[in-house]
Amino acid sequence: MPQIRPDWIAVDWGTTNVRAWAMTDAGDVLGALNSTDGMCKLSRDEFEPALAKLLAPWMTDAPVDVLACGMLGSLQGWVEAPYRATPCAALASETVQAPSVDPRFSVRVVPGVRQNKPADVMRGEETQIAGYLAKNPKFDGVLCLPGTHTKWVHISAGEIVSFQTFLTGEMFAALSTHTVLRHSIDPIGWDDAAFDDALADALSRPDRLAARLFTVRAEGVLNGQSGGVARARLSGALIGAELAAAKPYWLGQQIVVIGASFLARIYMRALEAQGGAPHFADAAEMTIDGLTAVRQNAKAGP
Amino acid sequence: MPQIRPDWIAVDWGTTNVRAWAMTDAGDVLGALNSTDGMCKLSRDEFEPALAKLLAPWMTDAPVDVLACGMLGSLQGWVEAPYRATPCAALASETVQAPSVDPRFSVRVVPGVRQNKPADVMRGEETQIAGYLAKNPKFDGVLCLPGTHTKWVHISAGEIVSFQTFLTGEMFAALSTHTVLRHSIDPIGWDDAAFDDALADALSRPDRLAARLFTVRAEGVLNGQSGGVARARLSGALIGAELAAAKPYWLGQQIVVIGASFLARIYMRALEAQGGAPHFADAAEMTIDGLTAVRQNAKAGP
Repeated sequence: MPQIRPDWIAVDWGTTNVRAWAMTDAGDVLGALNSTDGMCKLSRDEFEPALAKLLAPWMTDAPVDVLACGMLGSLQGWVEAPYRATPCAALASETVQAPSVDPRFSVRVVPGVRQNKPADVMRGEETQIAGYLAKNPKFDGVLCLPGTHTKWVHISAGEIVSFQTFLTGEMFAALSTHTVLRHSIDPIGWDDAAFDDALADALSRPDRLAARLFTVRAEGVLNGQSGGVARARLSGALIGAELAAAKPYWLGQQIVVIGASFLARIYMRALEAQGGAPHFADAAEMTIDGLTAVRQNAKAGP
Repeated sequence: MPQIRPDWIAVDWGTTNVRAWAMTDAGDVLGALNSTDGMCKLSRDEFEPALAKLLAPWMTDAPVDVLACGMLGSLQGWVEAPYRATPCAALASETVQAPSVDPRFSVRVVPGVRQNKPADVMRGEETQIAGYLAKNPKFDGVLCLPGTHTKWVHISAGEIVSFQTFLTGEMFAALSTHTVLRHSIDPIGWDDAAFDDALADALSRPDRLAARLFTVRAEGVLNGQSGGVARARLSGALIGAELAAAKPYWLGQQIVVIGASFLARIYMRALEAQGGAPHFADAAEMTIDGLTAVRQNAKAGP
């Protein structure tokens, strides 16, 4: 296998995972590497050795530029990359140098975006947004980025106008593994009809979440409901409540869901059930496109 | 210290804790013992040794009756005490013998209560309800039993007419310790004004829970919100959503909150903010009164 020689390296450094892509100057991907050295496992001086270990297969004596987005730019990360405040261009024009001693790489970090009122923050999603807009510069509408902390983002004239974060994904994880629901839920099972029913129920009575969750448990105890049905009902209950609250974002708007396959699929299914016609974009591709766009933008700058 | 010689022993065997009270035939409490041998830690044949160990300070050669309520009567417990179905008398007239070999005690278990539609179950709360009604036989109205799984119970003519369980307490625990909110929340801090604000906000827009939770985090990151304020806001957001959904239960009704001190206090504060005038009853006292009433009722029976 010939060794990969990247022109530069794109990195998405999240809370629990790190992904790196070997890039050409033209924006093509030569290879990818992953690790579980997420921000939450590292103290400030452990980032550099973690990156050196991850990138070892691609390293030579020639120094290479690394451009990274995500939680490594937070206060608890490698270097704080101060938030840009909304409204702001989707594409960052400034990046922050991470302190390092290893001569083989030079690491710059893309800043996150903050909103002052209601208080909200993102780190990593701004780069996916920049990636989507790099390929769709005329887009005006709403981006939905489902994940641990799902974001709904209003885009107009190339700017992030406003956004709102929902804790839905993390609620799903905490409720399905750290409450009595863990006895009723199959960790990989699924049932589309149960999801649709729970979604419609949650949209019509979004306040009833805590009661609906106990019903998921009671149906398991009394009526032998399957673990896949229980999982789909929990998901439908949480996403339904989110869609009810996010309605000002998506109703009557052009919507693009940027996510990984399964989660994006169920958000699109939910939006379609409400009469929406969302488009799909792959989150990892958008991150790569976004880092490529930031690199070109920063190069063109002063 | 003279040894305690109970006429009988009352036991509340929950998921995580066991409490035992040494009782006289007249219903007076001579002493109490606790352990953390909750149902979730025990297989079926470990209940009897766990009870023998807990009750050792009170044991003599003379056999003693034990009457117990709670999760020991579940399918995963010591012996399954099949649910009674609503509508049903608050006071159980039948109990189930737990299999045991130790000649020093004989254990009977109070059955739980089920509701077929919407599916719902309780084990332990039915005994607190029976205790309240033993002292307040004319009560007609709503009992609120806040806890891990908060119950709202409609009582009329001495019967449990219907009830609804909310996962609120367990959601609070899972969200405050197993999501990003753990970085923002002080485990014992509190702020009444923050609770009141979050409660009012949640009552007016109960669908916005997942967004509100992320705002609690973002206010910590951006604006230095204290951990006590964050904890009170999470509590207010969850209890506000619960009150919004439980409104058909409490609006315009006579309400009694049966609980432990702090949690009962915040539920009462929340109900008072909505114009209610709830009364308070202590959960442990209601359990003791309820087991006393069941014992007398069962004695009077065939």
